[in-house]
Order: sequence, then structure tokens, then C-alpha cells
Amino acid sequence: MKTSPGIYERFMETRKRTLEICSALERDDYMVQATEETSPPKWHLGHTTWFFETFVLKKHLKGYKEFNEKFSDIFNSYYNAVGYFLPKPGRMLLSRPSLDLILQYRLYVESKIEAMFHGKQGAIPQNIQDLVLLGINHEEQHQELLVMDIKENLFHSPFRPSFGSQQKQTGKAVKLEWIGFKGGISSVGAADSGFSFDNENPRHKTYLYPYSIASRLVTNGEFLEFINDGGYEDPALWLSEGWSLINREKWKMPHYWEKHGNGYYCFTPEGMKRLNPEEPVCHVSYYEADAYARWIGNRLPTEEEWENAFSSKPAMPERKEYAWHPSVQASSDKLQGPGECWEWTSSAYHPYPGFKPLSGALGEYNGKFMSQQMVLRGDSAATPPGHSRITYRNFYHPESRWQFAGIRLCRGPGHV
Amino acid sequence: MKTSPGIYERFMETRKRTLEICSALERDDYMVQATEETSPPKWHLGHTTWFFETFVLKKHLKGYKEFNEKFSDIFNSYYNAVGYFLPKPGRMLLSRPSLDLILQYRLYVESKIEAMFHGKQGAIPQNIQDLVLLGINHEEQHQELLVMDIKENLFHSPFRPSFGSQQKQTGKAVKLEWIGFKGGISSVGAADSGFSFDNENPRHKTYLYPYSIASRLVTNGEFLEFINDGGYEDPALWLSEGWSLINREKWKMPHYWEKHGNGYYCFTPEGMKRLNPEEPVCHVSYYEADAYARWIGNRLPTEEEWENAFSSKPAMPERKEYAWHPSVQASSDKLQGPGECWEWTSSAYHPYPGFKPLSGALGEYNGKFMSQQMVLRGDSAATPPGHSRITYRNFYHPESRWQFAGIRLCRGPGHV
Amino acid sequence: MKTSPGIYERFMETRKRTLEICSALERDDYMVQATEETSPPKWHLGHTTWFFETFVLKKHLKGYKEFNEKFSDIFNSYYNAVGYFLPKPGRMLLSRPSLDLILQYRLYVESKIEAMFHGKQGAIPQNIQDLVLLGINHEEQHQELLVMDIKENLFHSPFRPSFGSQQKQTGKAVKLEWIGFKGGISSVGAADSGFSFDNENPRHKTYLYPYSIASRLVTNGEFLEFINDGGYEDPALWLSEGWSLINREKWKMPHYWEKHGNGYYCFTPEGMKRLNPEEPVCHVSYYEADAYARWIGNRLPTEEEWENAFSSKPAMPERKEYAWHPSVQASSDKLQGPGECWEWTSSAYHPYPGFKPLSGALGEYNGKFMSQQMVLRGDSAATPPGHSRITYRNFYHPESRWQFAGIRLCRGPGHV
Amino acid sequence: MKTSPGIYERFMETRKRTLEICSALERDDYMVQATEETSPPKWHLGHTTWFFETFVLKKHLKGYKEFNEKFSDIFNSYYNAVGYFLPKPGRMLLSRPSLDLILQYRLYVESKIEAMFHGKQGAIPQNIQDLVLLGINHEEQHQELLVMDIKENLFHSPFRPSFGSQQKQTGKAVKLEWIGFKGGISSVGAADSGFSFDNENPRHKTYLYPYSIASRLVTNGEFLEFINDGGYEDPALWLSEGWSLINREKWKMPHYWEKHGNGYYCFTPEGMKRLNPEEPVCHVSYYEADAYARWIGNRLPTEEEWENAFSSKPAMPERKEYAWHPSVQASSDKLQGPGECWEWTSSAYHPYPGFKPLSGALGEYNGKFMSQQMVLRGDSAATPPGHSRITYRNFYHPESRWQFAGIRLCRGPGHV
Repeated sequence: MKTSPGIYERFMETRKRTLEICSALERDDYMVQATEETSPPKWHLGHTTWFFETFVLKKHLKGYKEFNEKFSDIFNSYYNAVGYFLPKPGRMLLSRPSLDLILQYRLYVESKIEAMFHGKQGAIPQNIQDLVLLGINHEEQHQELLVMDIKENLFHSPFRPSFGSQQKQTGKAVKLEWIGFKGGISSVGAADSGFSFDNENPRHKTYLYPYSIASRLVTNGEFLEFINDGGYEDPALWLSEGWSLINREKWKMPHYWEKHGNGYYCFTPEGMKRLNPEEPVCHVSYYEADAYARWIGNRLPTEEEWENAFSSKPAMPERKEYAWHPSVQASSDKLQGPGECWEWTSSAYHPYPGFKPLSGALGEYNGKFMSQQMVLRGDSAATPPGHSRITYRNFYHPESRWQFAGIRLCRGPGHV
Repeated sequence: MKTSPGIYERFMETRKRTLEICSALERDDYMVQATEETSPPKWHLGHTTWFFETFVLKKHLKGYKEFNEKFSDIFNSYYNAVGYFLPKPGRMLLSRPSLDLILQYRLYVESKIEAMFHGKQGAIPQNIQDLVLLGINHEEQHQELLVMDIKENLFHSPFRPSFGSQQKQTGKAVKLEWIGFKGGISSVGAADSGFSFDNENPRHKTYLYPYSIASRLVTNGEFLEFINDGGYEDPALWLSEGWSLINREKWKMPHYWEKHGNGYYCFTPEGMKRLNPEEPVCHVSYYEADAYARWIGNRLPTEEEWENAFSSKPAMPERKEYAWHPSVQASSDKLQGPGECWEWTSSAYHPYPGFKPLSGALGEYNGKFMSQQMVLRGDSAATPPGHSRITYRNFYHPESRWQFAGIRLCRGPGHV
Repeated sequence: MKTSPGIYERFMETRKRTLEICSALERDDYMVQATEETSPPKWHLGHTTWFFETFVLKKHLKGYKEFNEKFSDIFNSYYNAVGYFLPKPGRMLLSRPSLDLILQYRLYVESKIEAMFHGKQGAIPQNIQDLVLLGINHEEQHQELLVMDIKENLFHSPFRPSFGSQQKQTGKAVKLEWIGFKGGISSVGAADSGFSFDNENPRHKTYLYPYSIASRLVTNGEFLEFINDGGYEDPALWLSEGWSLINREKWKMPHYWEKHGNGYYCFTPEGMKRLNPEEPVCHVSYYEADAYARWIGNRLPTEEEWENAFSSKPAMPERKEYAWHPSVQASSDKLQGPGECWEWTSSAYHPYPGFKPLSGALGEYNGKFMSQQMVLRGDSAATPPGHSRITYRNFYHPESRWQFAGIRLCRGPGHV
Repeated sequence: MKTSPGIYERFMETRKRTLEICSALERDDYMVQATEETSPPKWHLGHTTWFFETFVLKKHLKGYKEFNEKFSDIFNSYYNAVGYFLPKPGRMLLSRPSLDLILQYRLYVESKIEAMFHGKQGAIPQNIQDLVLLGINHEEQHQELLVMDIKENLFHSPFRPSFGSQQKQTGKAVKLEWIGFKGGISSVGAADSGFSFDNENPRHKTYLYPYSIASRLVTNGEFLEFINDGGYEDPALWLSEGWSLINREKWKMPHYWEKHGNGYYCFTPEGMKRLNPEEPVCHVSYYEADAYARWIGNRLPTEEEWENAFSSKPAMPERKEYAWHPSVQASSDKLQGPGECWEWTSSAYHPYPGFKPLSGALGEYNGKFMSQQMVLRGDSAATPPGHSRITYRNFYHPESRWQFAGIRLCRGPGHV
């Protein structure tokens, strides 16, 4: 990990942005945990603070006095090496500590980090800067989780309130183009410079066959064609576990969608809105993404194909109508676009060749989840600015739908 | 139902007392639903208000305008005849309506009830007075539930905070006496005058064999002897379903108890406290009450035996050490004693001969629960003053322990 | 317990009848356990034998050598005092011991019982005769369970094979009459002479209000009117737990019924047959019986009302069309009638006043099940001849439907 | 698919071998389904026959008359395109059809296949030969499942009977050697000639880093060191889902192991036997294999590394003590060795680049299971002779343990 200048300033900006995300909440919203996947917003506020306290202050600030000794059990998410942690479903019970006390906790830890950076002579050692930078990236991940969880929580409210605004996509989706790549040996994984998570490393070679990837995500309107064609009723389109899942759960459309009369509606930051067929379909599970791709005669890309595409010049000459606009290429643009979402790949989340987790308790950050999950690439409208990278590996269970996840098609070999 | 004078004043006192019970709560506590049996405190505040709105105002106040049309779904507990109701486990999701809005709802409904009583000429018709009185008694029941639920909710907090104070029992428990009754035909059920629930009616005859009942409840110290004698490990003492239950749930002691080292502690309104062996054992299931009684060679009373005892002169001459002090006899005294609790009877909760539920939706108040539950008699430290009666029939599933329930022994025929 | 002459002969007849019930089975049928409530037929063959081995031979035959020491774990149903027992759902795993070995076990135990009765001078002591008689009655209970379990098991076969024949009811059901009783103090429970189970004792007084009871059971045709009137869709007719149950299980008609087109069919010993509207409705749960009674404006009898009716002269003058034909009155007739079934009462299964269980392990026979079950009275087409009595108390959980259980209506006080 | 000469003879040999595997069973054993993963042996006998009936006879034998029209529902395992199939847990209910009828079904189908091969002029068309060959390979897979299921079923019997014999490993395990490979572009997947399943195709290139693979599997004795070192208690060694699993299931050792006193025993075809520390550890889940590898500082191979190793000359000079003895290299030798088992790889079961499933219903054979399962390579003592290949891809959920699965270690890059 290399650190950038102004790390304390970035720390403070990140902390501030977390609270800004919560500004749409009413007081009682901080307590809700609508599903076992989500956490109450107040817990995120505590946990991101606990991360700095545990891995920076307790280890590296001499004489640091813990804010409250019970907080370690409560706000430890899953680090066995740190000690006991409260099982996730129990987070909804945490009326104590109160939100007020958690906000005090945030200020306390921030003041101690400030003291560390400004209170003494000389530079902060690189290893501590690295930990703070990790903590910043960790809090950014929780910013996205906060948006996801708030959306899920408020969807379960009978009032379906709004919790923000979103930019509208006006006009038609651009024409879907196929961008071809000739394959061969390609390198994937994080470069040496700049921050990256351990799971993006080491950079390594992989062999790719020729393939083409779609220039944009599948839209709501395109996905409706799949629904209207009986996609959810045809077992031939589904992986076996997906078919069991949609029948057990009675899924007939993406998460957050509802059909009233002949019209489809979906839950957005502005409440229930009529579905815009021109926006990318979002909140689908891996099984739905895979079934859609099979229905239309294509497939999902592997994560190596995805990464190669976003870091390569395409093999094929650009055509006039070319609409290549991958979201992570220009992250400052990206958040302006409505409805963009993470992209399911067909790759299981496994270690790269030569992968080494971080040492100590932080080794539990990523590596231990490399089982039964699928890699998603890109980023989403909920990802904080500057957080994403082309080498970034997000991961969810294939049945998960509360993250902002959509579908980019791929085809080949044989279809370049 | 006969109504008493000053019903509006009693209405307002009851409403006020509900808020007083919540005064120990921090803001976030209003949102917690620790188990499927409990409800978040804010829900109780809304539901008790909905009861008056639904059964009094909407039916009998001309031109009444509903406070919020979504509230009927949310705050209806289980009245199918009123319409849809949110399933109980979903109550924890209700961050909206906010607590503030619920408190406004309370004030709105109270102002309309006031207008009804004071805003027009002439007396309120008897049937409306009866409904208000039913609503008062209903809210009193929820006051007890509030105490029960707050205790359960805060027990699940890692902080185990206090939420009130309780009177200490100092000194020794009085000596347990056996009070004998000669049996024969006895009448049980509500008398004609005064308020009673439909399930207490009609008053009717029953035939009793001679029996004796204990003058006081079993104490913690006595229950510890059962534990120390291996009571929780001996299947011969248990009903089959109780034996399965305690093994499945790994119960080794009453609810709220914990053993640390050699000492027993229990959760009280003042937090975790060392167990006082002289106080009545509380928070036991029916199965534990029944097993204890079998272990000591006695049994639990039927509800008819219990009611007969508390409304009769005993058949046996009073002895010197007589310590007959049934809690409901003098309800003004009762609340002064710490730890008193409802008393499990061996009677399933069934309709009395000739039982008629209230008409309309209110017929769902009691009758539809007459299956798989056991009757408890008396009252508890959590029961509001003036709420209890000797004919009162409380009821819980035999495995429930979060209500304040203890053990009064009985014996006979053959043991008078 | 008083024993009758010819007890050894009755023992052998009972043993033989058990095998006769199995004569309709194919070999593989002996292994099936279709639901957790049922047992594989081969297990019944072993368990009824184990009962004689455990409570008669091992205790009272000097030098008795156990057939196989593993059998005690396997064939003990639930007697904790005897030792470990295999949990019920595991019975389907018992391919070993083979059916052949179990049949050898039967012969071995029978030969030892014979040796006991005939191999020595003098009479068998009364207490041993009592145990053999208890074993005979126990095996008779398992004969009915065998019929119930075979029916359930074969219903789950895609072939729905027949497993016997049944007498047809031809012609119309007799007209339903109301037989009135004037109430007062009545005695219920087993008389001193003849065999009875511990739970039928002691005989005791109870107070009854005037009531009338229906002269015959509710028929399929009458129950269809309830269905067609939307009985399964109207929550006002159901106990709360029943309403949850039928919605969770999606019950729309009695067990073993199916609707094909406009016609109703039900599974019988002769396979799937068109429903005969003139026969008594059978295989309903307590909740369905109770809902039907509420729908038609009546109720179910208590067990005391039932017993009083079947042992009394009715209070009302016999009318011309009187069709009083309670099945247990003439048990030799009863088995000739098709489709007769046990009758749900509204009484929870609780101990009679002064109830004392048998001593030792046999105390677990009945008493420990006195929780969460309802009493059924009468008998059924599956009950062995001579097994039933007017004081007999059968019991099942209110949701159970695989036993042959129907509905007899009652009404009053106020409807005599 | 290319077919070999003598396909009818191979068909008949395969059919015969299936029955030979069952020869150790008692009659009732055919009915047992001990867990949801297993099937009753009689079902396997029917299902393998149904496969030939459905995909060969019904499609390609003119005038073929189905043996029993109900069998399609019963013996269809999971082919949605064929029609309804009985859910797997219901297979234990199939007392009908009887075993006798299933054996008749086998003979009937065999006679029709014989008629097809011998009853007419000219050669069988290649596509039909291919289907028969697929059916043979399918039945061989079920032969291994039969061995697995019989073992599981009889393990649940209180008698723990033997069901065969197994060759003993005498003497010490050979010394574990590391065989190095230099990596680079390697080809994996089935060659053009000879039978292979669709999931082994197409043969394709992959890029490998230098790695070393262990010359033999991990032994019981080596795995005991992991146990004795607290391997099952240290969360740092486990994938997160594995840690949850072993705690939820309370796993402390491999499946079929038991500890009595200080000694370990395991269930074998000859019943419970003392554990031989020199044999390969078997019946471990993926999580246990992965945790063991992490504990010892190595890892599991990817399926590409495994296949490359077994089809390559190693890069490193052979050393004296070299003990390279991969089981699938010499399948005639392999089955002589006791306890050999499938080898977990770290690869999720996903399609190869350019994968195409078989057309029609047979497309459901493999492809739809490419989700949430891990690839295993090699074969086991339960695999039929001649069934395995170096390119063969077996697959199970990572928590499965009833298949014969063990651990081969791998290391590198950086450890060659």
C-alpha cells in the first residue's frame, strides 16, 4: 500500500460523507434491520469507528483509552482474531448504545486520529498511514452498504418514503454494441501504485479466448421482454439452484419491482416510481443475470474478460455508433448517471494465484469469504466517488439482490 | 358491562400512565422487538390509540376524520374483521411512523374523545361508555405488556440497563401454610356488577373436590432446591412436551436467571441483581411450574379451585401462623410487594359453559385464543392498579416465560 | 385392574390380529414412515413385542434371556425410565433388524409368555395378569395406529393402492336429531370392574348444564356445505391457531380429500374413491371440527357431556324419528358400519381430579402427555373389537388429522 | 462421442455390476434414505433403467411400449424437460413399486435394448450408440452413488453392519514428495477420442504459474495432527462459511469417524474399525480440506493444476525416494488400493470456455449444476473400473462429506 498526501483530510472528508448519507433518515430509521443481510444504520456508524479504534488507535497510539469496553463486542463485525462479536441478526437489538452515544464515539475517535496526525513532530510512519487509508476505504465500502441498507429498510416501511433524489435518465438508452477482444495472455490484478485491497493482488497472467462484450448494460425494457417471454417460468434457462430459489421465493421480477395493473413500478430513492425502460436493470441476482444471458443466447463475462475489456483497446475497429462508456473509466462522470450498477461476472470469488492475505486480524478482511460467492465488477450509483478501480473485486452470494447489481452481456469464443 | 362515574377522567389517567411507563426508555428503545412475542414500545403506543379510534371514534363520532389511513394496517393487532394487519414480526420495521408522529396520534385521538365527552349536551350513551371502558381495560393490559416487553428488550442489550426501581423484599418469606376447602358445588365467573371481560362470563356452577391451597407462592430459594436436586435433568418430573422444550432450549433455570460462579443472578428493573431467595420465583413456564409441583409431591390448582379459594372462607379453622395473603384481595397493598406474579393454573383456556363473545370485530378480543393456552390467575407487580379481579382470566402458552408468572401449590383430594 | 379368564387366549388372538392387519402389505411397505407422526409397520411389530418383553418377561420371568440387547433402544417408544430410545423420526432408518428378525422376535416372546402361563404349576399372580392385560390393550392401540399409519403411508405412494375393503354405506344418512340432557351433577370415569387405563380414573363428579347432543355425526355432504359457503376462507369461524394452520398448510378440505374437476374424492382402504356425501366426515382436525360447529351455530361437546350422554337416558321424550345410534354402545355392531370415527370434544386432555399414574416406568404411559392435546371419545372403524369403552379417553394434538376423527355437534345451555 | 466395439456387451456387464453392488444388502436396506443427499438403493435400480427407457427406447425403438406410465414421474431424477419428477426427499416413500417390480422393469428394458442391438439387420446408428454409451457411463456414476448411499444408510443403523470387504493397507504410507511443474500455457479438457461428458469439453488453453503438487494424499495420521493441534477450534484456519458449518454441525473430525476413549474408529465396508493412520484421510468436506492445507502452510490445487500434473512429465528431476503414484494413471492398479478417494480442488465448478451442453433434455445432465459446487478430480475406491479419466470433473457442494473425498496438497508459485 502506498499512501497519498493529505490522508488526514481525506479521512475527515470520508467521515463527514458517512453522516451526509444518513441525513435523509428520521431518528427511528437508524434502528431498522429489515433483513439478515442488512445492518441498522447506527451500527454502521459505530462499526466504521471501531475499525479505526481497533486497528489504528489501540495498536499505535500510546496511552489510548478505549471509549467503551463493551463496544468491541458490539461493533466488531466478524474478526475472530479480535475477539467475540455479536451475531449479525442481533444488531437490531442495540437500542443501547444510543445513537447519541455512537455519535460521541465518532467524535472521540476522530479527535484521537487528529491528535495522532497533528499532535506530534515528524511524519506518521508509513504502516500507520496505510492502516488509516485502509480504514478510509473500509468506511467507503460501508457508505455503499448504508445506501443499500437504507433502501432495503425503507422498502419494508408501509410508507415507502423517499430518502434522496436521483438523476433521471431522459431519452433512449444508447444502442448496444459488441466490442471484440482477441484474447491471448492478459494480465489482471492491481498495479503496484495506489491503494488496492489484498484480494486484487498479485497482478498475474491469464489466458483468454477471443470474446466480445456489450457496450452497455441490459435495460429494464430488455429485461421486461425476458419476463414477458416467460423467462421466470422456463426451467431450461436457469441454473438448478436458481430455479429452486425463484420457485421457493416466488420471484417473478427483480427486487424492488412491483406490478400494479399492467404497469411496473420500482422502489427508488424518491419512493415508488414507474419503471423507466431505458435505464439499466438493477437489483437482480446472479441467477437472474445468468438466465437472462442464456435466454438471449449470450453469457456473462468472466472477471478476467471484464477487466481485460476495461483496461484494453478493443481489437475491433470502432464503428460510428460506438457507445463504449464503461462506468469506472470516468468516475467523476459516473455518479451523475442514474441507475448504474455493479456487473455480475461468471467467476466465483477465489484467490488469485499467489494471493496473500494481510497479516493479523486484518487477514480476515477478504480472504475468508472466498467461498460460495460470485465476483461483481465495476461500481454503482451508490459507490462513493473515487472508491472504485478497474481491478476492484466486489463479491456477493449469487442469490443476493439488495446490492445495486445489473447485467453486462458477453459472447464468444466464436462470436467476436 | 356497567360503567362507573368519571370515565373520562379514568381514560385520561390511563393514557398518562402509559407514557409514564415509557419514561425510563431512551429514544432508541422504542424501536426494539427482542423476540417474536414482544412488540416495540412505540407500537403499543400506537395500537392502544388505534383501539379507541377504531371502536369508538370511527363508529360513534360523526364526521370523525381518520388521523392517517395507513395506521389501520399498522396498528391493528389481529382483528381480521377490521381488515388487513401487519404480521407481528414486522413491527420492528416500523421506523415510520416516527415516535413523534405516534405521540401526535395519541393527542389527536385523546382530543376527539374529550370532544365526545365534553363537547355536547347530554350524557354519553351507555354502549359508548362501555366501549371506552373496554378501551381503558385494553390499554391497561398493554401497560403490563409494555413492562414485560421493555424488560425482555433490555435484557437483550449488552448493557443490561435498569429501567425502573423495585421495592425490595426484606426479611424472610412467611411460612407456607395450607388452606383447606371442602369443595362441593361452587360458582365461578364474573358477577353482574362492574367491568369484566367476556371470557369471565357467564358465572356458572362447577363441582369441586376437597383441596388445599398454599398460602403463598413458591420462593426462589425453594425453587433452587428443585434445581439442586436435579429437577431439570429428571424426565420423570416433566410433561413430555416440557421435557422436549427444556432440552431443545437448554433451559436449566427460570428466565432472566444466570449463574456466575456459585451465585445466581437475575435481571430486574434495576439491572442484574443477586437472586433473593425469599422472593417468589417468577418467569417460569407452565412446564417448570408443573414439574416443580410434581417434584414436591403437590400439583397446580385448577382455575376453579383458585377462584373458589380467593372468594371463599376456608373450610379449616384458622391457625395461629396463618399467613393468608392473596395478592388480588387487596390490590392497593399488592403493588407494594416486590416480585409478585401471575399464578399458573392447570386449566386450559377454554370457554365457560354458555360463553358468548362480544359482537362484531370485538368478538375476536378473547374467544379466538381459546386453544393451546393455559389460564393464569391473580396479577403481578406489572399489573396496573385496579385492573385485576378474582375472576380475571389471563392466558399464555405453556412455554411462555416473559410474563411475570410464578407458582402456587395445591393438593388434594385426600390432602385437605 | 381386574383380569378376565382366558387371558392367554386373548393374548394370542391379539398377536394374531396384528399380523392380519399387515396382511395387505407388500414387503417394502413395512419400511415406510410417511410423516413424523407415523411409524413404519415393522416398528409397530417390534414395539408391541418389546412391551411384553420389558414389562412382563424381564421383570417377572426368572432367567429370561433378552432376544437382542440392541432392541431395547430401538423399540422403546418413549419410556425415559427404561433407558435411551431412538428418536421417532429415525424409525425409517431401521432396515436392520430385518422384518424376518422382528417376526422371530415376536415368536420368541410369545413362546416365553406361553411358557409363563402354561409351564408351571399354579395360577399366574394377579399383578402379572394385569401387566399382560395392559400389554394386550397396548397392542390393540397399536393395531389402530397400524391402520392409520398404513393409510397415511400408502396415500403418499404415487400408486395410491388399496389395502383392504370397507363396508359401503348405502342409502341416506339418518336424520340428525337432538337428544337433550338436563344436567346437574353427573359422574364420569371408569367403573371399578373391568379393564381401564389410568387416565380414565378415578370416577368422579362433575357439574353439567342442560345440553343437547346430535344423534349422529356430521356427514361429508354437510361438511361440503361448509366448504361451499367459504368456511375455509372466513377467519371469524376459526380459532386463531387454526386459522394460522390452515393458511400455512393451505388446507381447503379434510385430509385425504382431493378435488378433481367438480368432484370430490377421498382415499379409502380401496384406494381413491368418489366421496360419499352420506357417510360421516372423517380425518378433520380439531380446528376444522370447531370451525364447522361455529359455522352452523353449535359447538363441540365437552368430554363430560359426551360421556354423560352415552351412559344416560336422555331427558327428552323419544320422538318417532329418533335415530340414536352411538357407536360405542354396541361395539359388536360398530365395526360393521363404514367410516365411523372418533369424536373431537372441546376438552383439553388433563388429569381427572385425584388422578394417579401407574407406578414405575408405566407411569409414562398416559400422564406425561396431558398437555396441548384434546380428548376424543367413542371409537372408529379402525378400533379393534372390544377395545373401546364409554369412559375411554383418546387424545391427539388439535392439528392432527391422520387419525379417524369426525364431528358430533352439541348445543346448550339454552338450546335443550 | 465416439463409441467402442462391443457396446452391448459393456451394457450388460454394467447392468450386472449394479446388482452385484447390491448383493450385500438385506431386503429392507433397499428402502432406506438416510439423508436428503442419498437415495434408496431400489430407486437407483429404477432410475438407471429409466434413463435407457427415456433417452434410448422411447426415442429410438419403434413401437416401444412403456413398462409403467407412472415410472416416469418416479424415476426421473431432475430432468424438467422430461416432465414432472418426484422431489428427492420423497424417494423414501416409494414402497410401491416393489423391489420385485423394479427388477422386472430392469429385465424388460434390458430385453428391449437387446432386441435393438440384435434383433434387426445392420448396424445401430452412431447417435443411438452414443446414447447407450452415455447410459452406461450414467449407470456407472450411480454405481458409485450406490456404494456411497449404502455406506451412509447403514451407518445410521444401530447395528452398523458390514456391507463388503476392503483391502487393507499394510505397512507405512510412502513418503510425501513434492513434484514440481514449471507452468506456462497448458491445455486441459477432454481429447477428441473416447467417451467424455459434455462438461469436460472443449479442450482449451489455460495459463499456469509454477507449482508443486504432493505425490500422495494426506493420511489419517497426518490429519490427526491437525485435530490434535486444535485445527477444528481455530477460526483463522477456516473459510467463513466453513467455520459456521463446523460450529453449527459440531464437527470435530471427518465424517464416519468416532472417538471412543483415546482411540479413533471409522465406519468401513466391514463395520466400525480402528482408524489406520497410514491410509488416506477420506470423507472430508471442502472446508476441512482447505483448512488442513492452510494449517500446514500449503493449499489445494486448482483443477487445471491437477490435470496438468497428471498428464505431464514433472519439471523437476526425479529424486530417489520418488513415489509418484496418482491413482487415475493406472486404473487397473488403483482399485486394489484401499481407501483412495476423490481429491478436492480449489476450483468452482464452472463451464469451460466455449462449453456447450448436450441438446434437448440431456442438456440438463451437467450444465445446470454449475453453481455453488467445487470440482473434485481423480476417482475413488468406489468408482467402477474404467469409468475415470484424467479430464473427469466430479463436483459436490463444499459441505458434502458422504462421497469418498480426500486431500492432495499443492504449493506455489514460489515453492517449486
